[in-house]
Amino acid sequence: MTGSTRPHVIIVGGGFGGLWATRALADSDVRITLIDRRNHHLFQPLLYQVATAGLSAPDIAAPLRHILRNQHNVEVRLGEVTGIDMKARTVSLADGDSESYDYLLLASGATHAYFGHDEWSADAPGLKTLDDALAIRRRLLLAFERAETCTDPIEREAWLSFAVVGGGPTGVELAGTLAEIARHTLKREFRNIDPSHAKVRLIEAGPRVLASFPESLSERARRQLHKLGVEVVTGTPVSAIDANGYTLGNTFVPARTVVWAAGVAASPLGALLGVPRDRAGRVPLEDDLSVPGHPDIFIAGDLASVQQGGKPVPGVAPAAKQMGAHVAQAIKARLAGKPAPAFRYRDFGNLATIGRMAAVVDLHGFKLSGLLAWWFWLAAHVFFLIGFRNRLIVLLNWAWSYWSYQRHARIILERDPASPSD
Amino acid sequence: MTGSTRPHVIIVGGGFGGLWATRALADSDVRITLIDRRNHHLFQPLLYQVATAGLSAPDIAAPLRHILRNQHNVEVRLGEVTGIDMKARTVSLADGDSESYDYLLLASGATHAYFGHDEWSADAPGLKTLDDALAIRRRLLLAFERAETCTDPIEREAWLSFAVVGGGPTGVELAGTLAEIARHTLKREFRNIDPSHAKVRLIEAGPRVLASFPESLSERARRQLHKLGVEVVTGTPVSAIDANGYTLGNTFVPARTVVWAAGVAASPLGALLGVPRDRAGRVPLEDDLSVPGHPDIFIAGDLASVQQGGKPVPGVAPAAKQMGAHVAQAIKARLAGKPAPAFRYRDFGNLATIGRMAAVVDLHGFKLSGLLAWWFWLAAHVFFLIGFRNRLIVLLNWAWSYWSYQRHARIILERDPASPSD
Repeated sequence: MTGSTRPHVIIVGGGFGGLWATRALADSDVRITLIDRRNHHLFQPLLYQVATAGLSAPDIAAPLRHILRNQHNVEVRLGEVTGIDMKARTVSLADGDSESYDYLLLASGATHAYFGHDEWSADAPGLKTLDDALAIRRRLLLAFERAETCTDPIEREAWLSFAVVGGGPTGVELAGTLAEIARHTLKREFRNIDPSHAKVRLIEAGPRVLASFPESLSERARRQLHKLGVEVVTGTPVSAIDANGYTLGNTFVPARTVVWAAGVAASPLGALLGVPRDRAGRVPLEDDLSVPGHPDIFIAGDLASVQQGGKPVPGVAPAAKQMGAHVAQAIKARLAGKPAPAFRYRDFGNLATIGRMAAVVDLHGFKLSGLLAWWFWLAAHVFFLIGFRNRLIVLLNWAWSYWSYQRHARIILERDPASPSD
Repeated sequence: MTGSTRPHVIIVGGGFGGLWATRALADSDVRITLIDRRNHHLFQPLLYQVATAGLSAPDIAAPLRHILRNQHNVEVRLGEVTGIDMKARTVSLADGDSESYDYLLLASGATHAYFGHDEWSADAPGLKTLDDALAIRRRLLLAFERAETCTDPIEREAWLSFAVVGGGPTGVELAGTLAEIARHTLKREFRNIDPSHAKVRLIEAGPRVLASFPESLSERARRQLHKLGVEVVTGTPVSAIDANGYTLGNTFVPARTVVWAAGVAASPLGALLGVPRDRAGRVPLEDDLSVPGHPDIFIAGDLASVQQGGKPVPGVAPAAKQMGAHVAQAIKARLAGKPAPAFRYRDFGNLATIGRMAAVVDLHGFKLSGLLAWWFWLAAHVFFLIGFRNRLIVLLNWAWSYWSYQRHARIILERDPASPSD
């Protein structure tokens, strides 16, 4: 608390949870330090569009400093939290520095989980960051290039065989868009292969895709995926993945490109607290979103395990925003010496896009699918994008790719940290 | 020459030279293979905008396959040429394949040259590819972040000290834009530093910046740079560069960020020919742009050493385009059994931008500088951008950043191959 007697709030993570908490504290007499490993807020719901070359990385990201430049009680700090001392109330950073806090909010989100098979990560990359998205984009585009120059027909088929593991919203979006790329975007561009012969498979271990939606919408989604050219496999888990393909039940399927959209684990920062966590690494909280026994520490977003009406609050952007805003209210209540209110999740509904003009929407029983749902999805997502410029550019990109089937970001950058020898 | 008796033209490099040659052969009864290490044509004149976060990488690049999708006599191949057998008339590729040619065009461009100091490359990256641009962008943005968290005032000053080595068009563009970022774009965003106190220095070993322009325009450029906040140092070469700074004459200057815009060397592919080359590695050519003694091998663009009226044809985009188109004509003449015409470079003038609303234009003695020159520069560059969508998006980005001083691509991606431990 150098140079100020105002209470110091440290917020770790500039995603939906952390950013919404920061903004909701704009008028409070506190000093906020927002710490993030990256310099930008990321609009994660559109990340699959960067992975599939429909959007540029900067289209869905904005520098945290820029977003918060006019909020004078906040200092943005690029850094990585490596330790939390709950007794001394300090947070230590990878660069050796440490900062003391009066209130701490952990909103560091989630990462991929490979269910004990971390060795799959090199051959089945997941999608959480912009770098992940660019690495996946590179693989998808390179697979078609490799197929084009490949003279062995069996090899060629493996390059044209794509699998997305996990039938949640991200998996459905990726598979649907990938099929669109193969069938439409790349049309006429190759001389030795027909990209529309590419096999795109979506694999879900459970009985249906989009399990968080009503069964009728899962069925709609499956039919829309089929129409787009995606083969949906349900009820069978993937039991092995390597550079040459994957094993489904007992069958090995040659496939050079596998994308992982199956598992989510809470950010490892939760482990620094030394408090009980659930199987996915999330921290069960008091009803004001504070950590049990630590009223000065809060959690928001994917790292939080919150139940409501016997059901877990889902790991979606609206929930993270609501939690972030609630934590700001709870901190204000503490500062005023009042009891903090309990968090109530307001579920506005559930939407998922499937591909060109196909989506499913569930608004408390009011169900939409197909073209109308897609327009609804588009409007909601563009509306919530941070920053006027991004909205405009994203809309223009969409209009352009809708009209032309083209995807402007089909640029292969050289680096791929997962395969440095490539 | 599998499956076809049409003459096979191999074109190496999809830059301005290679792409213009390919297009000019669209109606010829030849089979063309266009080989490039990257999947995209790059509009290099705007590369500095990607490095300085004004444009996204995909804004100035388009997939070669897409550009050429309707030209049915061309096959685009992603690959790296590793050998040329001029007797057997074959080109070998890094993937082990080889292809035979009837005519060969080398249009593989140029790379950085450190004048015998290759050890400087890690601390003073150059700007030739999109990956270079993203690496420089990352360094520029991270320098301000490091300064913000730095508690040692001397260290902090070194993070806020920037140098661009080389006063040609690229160096001038980079320095001018960097000063704009420090003075305007980052305004109000930091809490511990004032970015406008950053020192931006442009260092030119020769007597003046923009040496290819008339002296009066060099002087104008220097004054415009000064107004933007750039300190221009001429007549003094940099004698050493390391991670902590650079040495100018005998003085060591602490600076964490140095960008190299000083030297260009022709692509190493020229060495594969085993023919005489000039000091910069360029190949002197016959007046039809063929390699002396090898009428079936042509060179276009930065790898070509061509004199006209006692002066070298400059390494600029219009020259590369003209050479590419000329090589296509020469090949057509050869095929028709006629003598190939001599290449004539048509010099339409010289333009360079300096920064916000500042540029210099020299059209055969008709000179412009300042705002009018900038509008001229902008119109010319946007007009020549390949692909309608890119033009529109680039114009919109420009309008937006002109109006707001903002640069939408200020996103730090994680990887930097030059400093993997970072």
